[in-house]
Amino acid sequence: MRSVVVFYLCFLLCVGLGLACIICVCVWNSHWRGGFAWDGTAQQFNWHPVLMVTGLVVVYGIAAVLYRIPLTWGQNKLPWKLLHAALMFITLVLSIVGLCAVFDFHNANNISNLYSLHSWIGIAATALFALQWVVGVAGFLLPCSPVSLRKLLKPVHVWMGGSILSLSIVACISGINEKLFFVLKGTINGTQPYSKLPLEALLGNSLGVLIVAFGLVVLRILSNQNWQRQDSRPEDSAYTPLPQEEND
Amino acid sequence: MRSVVVFYLCFLLCVGLGLACIICVCVWNSHWRGGFAWDGTAQQFNWHPVLMVTGLVVVYGIAAVLYRIPLTWGQNKLPWKLLHAALMFITLVLSIVGLCAVFDFHNANNISNLYSLHSWIGIAATALFALQWVVGVAGFLLPCSPVSLRKLLKPVHVWMGGSILSLSIVACISGINEKLFFVLKGTINGTQPYSKLPLEALLGNSLGVLIVAFGLVVLRILSNQNWQRQDSRPEDSAYTPLPQEEND
Repeated sequence: MRSVVVFYLCFLLCVGLGLACIICVCVWNSHWRGGFAWDGTAQQFNWHPVLMVTGLVVVYGIAAVLYRIPLTWGQNKLPWKLLHAALMFITLVLSIVGLCAVFDFHNANNISNLYSLHSWIGIAATALFALQWVVGVAGFLLPCSPVSLRKLLKPVHVWMGGSILSLSIVACISGINEKLFFVLKGTINGTQPYSKLPLEALLGNSLGVLIVAFGLVVLRILSNQNWQRQDSRPEDSAYTPLPQEEND
Repeated sequence: MRSVVVFYLCFLLCVGLGLACIICVCVWNSHWRGGFAWDGTAQQFNWHPVLMVTGLVVVYGIAAVLYRIPLTWGQNKLPWKLLHAALMFITLVLSIVGLCAVFDFHNANNISNLYSLHSWIGIAATALFALQWVVGVAGFLLPCSPVSLRKLLKPVHVWMGGSILSLSIVACISGINEKLFFVLKGTINGTQPYSKLPLEALLGNSLGVLIVAFGLVVLRILSNQNWQRQDSRPEDSAYTPLPQEEND
């Protein structure tokens, strides 16, 4: 019982941090970065951080801990699998549109694509996630997929899931850091420099801290064996979360 | 037997990636960034990436997987605890000197300290690590520390350990990304711009990829329950790695 209460407190913290991330990235880009458009200007770029943080961090993280909700344990797993896949599909769409926003903006302004370390890590995270989603649907949702294949896939799927979230957070932090240096240049573009920590810098840094905190809480939830679904079906026997502990 | 062979292959990969990280960061800063000094110039700054990557990523990561080496399983744990603590002490010294290098450089050049997101994440990683080391020595090495305290501390120590490595990697990637934008400015400082991916950019990006790969391998090793030390002493019963799987 204590374990269930602690889970819901952690889950509440996770949802709260996730919402704070979304609010923070939206306020930053709407209020401080000039809002949104799809016209090749910096306003198009602004969709990039909003969609990547919302998709590949927040929705992804919530979808990852879905099976841990005690409410779902006694129920048929299929609807929860469908919800997991559907939320991950939303993540996939948000992150692809988020990538289109930045590629389009770069192309419209003759800026090279995929040269920075941020972009290398970010594109790797998105590509691995797309692969993970396709293999996940084929392996765990198609009725023709054999139990032996599911058993083989599960630890890989779980491991990849945690790694993709980690890559995604690394990409977000390097991206926010880079963006704040780009836009807060002091006298060069008439802003207060990043080094003086104006309000926008505090907001951007806080967004970074919130994203890291959200990621740590998600991985903490996944790490607790007491919060794992106790399912005796064969395809579930190999299911273990990426980071898992014996004790609460 | 197969599990032991796979462990040593993973451990070899881990050591190989770690060495590659150290070589890469040293070559970058000695050959491309002008080498090392302790005189308040950019050459003093160069110690910062070298010491942080060597300390808070590579030595830290190797020290973290030490207990997983099958060779150590049947032996008295104390010498391995001492080696773990000693390697972590080396990490602590390297990271403190690495921080002094950048603070000194900033102070000598009237550059503000601790304003960027990179610095916030990095200082949090180092501060948490210093706390973790002190609490670890007091809790697990001092003979007067009661078994009940060790039992309580272990899951927290293990969880913090993985979180600190993750924070450290996030700080490294954002730092390398930031540095490459700072120094590869094109016509402004007579270099080839980052966007043209000159050799230095490729080297820096590769260093970032190697650091991420090293981190994922370390967390993968920690995640495998088969590679956990099977110790029946009371203070070990609560010891479970941060990320752990039931199956190999």
